[in-house]
This record gives sequence, C-alpha cells and structure tokens, in this order.
Amino acid sequence: MTRGLSGAVPLAHFFLRERVKPGDRVVDATCGNGHDTLFLAELVGPEGRVWAFDIQDAALAATAKRLEAAGCGERVELVNGGHERLAELVPGPVTAVVFNLGFLPGAENGTITTPATTGAALDQATELLLPGGIVTVAVYTGHPGGPEEEAAVDAWAASLPPARFNVWRCRQGNRSSAAPYLVVAECRA
Amino acid sequence: MTRGLSGAVPLAHFFLRERVKPGDRVVDATCGNGHDTLFLAELVGPEGRVWAFDIQDAALAATAKRLEAAGCGERVELVNGGHERLAELVPGPVTAVVFNLGFLPGAENGTITTPATTGAALDQATELLLPGGIVTVAVYTGHPGGPEEEAAVDAWAASLPPARFNVWRCRQGNRSSAAPYLVVAECRA
Repeated sequence: MTRGLSGAVPLAHFFLRERVKPGDRVVDATCGNGHDTLFLAELVGPEGRVWAFDIQDAALAATAKRLEAAGCGERVELVNGGHERLAELVPGPVTAVVFNLGFLPGAENGTITTPATTGAALDQATELLLPGGIVTVAVYTGHPGGPEEEAAVDAWAASLPPARFNVWRCRQGNRSSAAPYLVVAECRA
Repeated sequence: MTRGLSGAVPLAHFFLRERVKPGDRVVDATCGNGHDTLFLAELVGPEGRVWAFDIQDAALAATAKRLEAAGCGERVELVNGGHERLAELVPGPVTAVVFNLGFLPGAENGTITTPATTGAALDQATELLLPGGIVTVAVYTGHPGGPEEEAAVDAWAASLPPARFNVWRCRQGNRSSAAPYLVVAECRA
C-alpha cells in the first residue's frame, strides 16, 4: 500500500484511509483486478462489509483470488452486475464508494466503463452516502471514449448541490493535462 | 477546527493533519490572523517548532494574541519578514510549508501577496521540504492581482520535476471556476 500521492489511485487511498473506519460499509463500484477491493476490505476490517461490482467474470475471479489470499473474502460481497445497479443492490447507506474508470487492467476484450452507466452509477453513489462519506473517482482520458467519460464525470460533479456536497477535482500540476485525475465528493455532515 | 472539505483551507488542513506529527518543524508562510499558525502549533505539539512569517505588524500581533490565548506561544517563532526570505530565515528542513495567499482578512491597507515574492517563496519552500513533506497553497483569484498570482502558482507547480515532487491542483467541482483552490506539492519519499 503506497502512502505517497504519486497518482490518482494513491490520492484516492489518502482520502479513504482518513474516512473509512473498522466496521464501515463501503462499495467498490469497479473492482477490476481487486486492488481497491482488498484495500477497502482491510480498512473496514472483519466487522465491516464491502460490495464489489464488476460485469466481467475475469475481474470477479481475480478479485476473489486476491481476497482469499489475504483472508478477507468473507467480508466482501462480489456482485456480478453493472455499477449502474448500485441503488438496487446495495442495502442502505455507506461511508464510501470507489470508482476506478476505464479499462480492466490486463484484459483483452476492450470492455470499458461508459458515460451512460457511469453517470447513472455516480448519481446513485452520492445518494447512498452517509454524512461525511465520500465518493472517489479516478478518471483516465487517454483511451477511446475517455474524453466522453471525463465529460460525464465533470457534469455529475457540477450537478451536486453545494449545500449538500463538497466536491474537489484534483489534477496533477506538473504532468500532462491528459494524466489521470481524481474527483472526490463528500456528503456534508 | 473543521474536519470537512468545505473549502481550500479545510482541504489543506486535511492534508496537513495526515502529514504533520508531534515534534515536527513547519512553516506558516503567511500567518495573517494566525488561524493556520495555531492549527500548525497544535499539530507539532510542545516539542515541535513553527516559523510564522508576515510583513504586517497587525498580522503578527493578532497571531501572537491567538497563540498566547491557546498557550502555544513558546513553540512558534514569529518572523517580521516577507516569505521570500524563507530560505534565509528557516534553519533546515521542514515537514510542511503553508501558504494562504491574497489579503490579510480584516485589514484595510490593501496589502496583498504578489506574484514575484510568492513565486520566490514557493521555490524556496519546496527546497526546504523533507521527503514526504508537503507545501499547501490556498489561492484566491477574485481580487485585483489574483489572476496574476494564480498564474505564478501554476507556473511554480508545473516547474516541479515529477521525479521529485507529486503536485495536485484541486478545484471545487460544483462551484465557480473563480472559487479558491488548493495546490499541494509533496516531496517524494
């Protein structure tokens, strides 16, 4: 687990480490190879609960293997479903929802997250948050469809009422404007 | 002390709370009315040290009063000097340097931080950092001279070599683009 701020995912982890406590309920909206799922499972501990979504069997299998190796499998519910079904499949409020958009690393089938489902999922994620809870979104713009997804994320961020949500869009100040960036939305306490 | 992410200063405090430990040495480059100075003094504790810079007697007096009321005066060195003299007046490496640019709140004399001295101060601040240390810069663009200062901060951020520094420019995603923003530069460990 890196503790520096060397990219969008380490920055997301920085926020999550401060907010997510043992016993919390959280969501990994895009489990991919399971790195974030395991990170969240470690933060919530044996009394907590993680819902981890993906639509690819390979992603869910890789995540299950990673969790099992770490002895964290029993606190995670793997959901074979699109993250646009968050509201339907997560029972009740959570402390954090984590998105890591774009490709599944290592996959060969070209499956990517898309603006329509991502926008719906982000809207549902903010509605699931407890006061003080956060949504983190790591956004990649370098692949086909990336700019459209960036526009969807920014539109979602701009739509959140300031009276209810603090929203930060964090980009790397000494790298290309195409470098991955992070959006953090906090439900005001 | 607010713990939410409701503005550039609360976001700076979020980063500082994670990084600054008891016994650390830190700098408040723009002490203003002393709110950040006191926050830093509490983080470093009785064994730590804070250097607090300002060029306005009213700012230093207000800060001294605030520190005295909190019983933290002895761990803070108030420096009547511009922050472009950081390298000269701070003896050795530090964990954090905090900038809160723009006007002294409540002052009537129109004194503002300026791009030339701010740029020099930021350059010196990054050179003072220990590995893992951070510079935080809250930037306001709404006053005369604000856009020029924004340009100076962004130029400084862009100039930092990625091999040595992680730099994040964080703006509010659901407020005006003219809202205050935060830049965080981390010296890579």
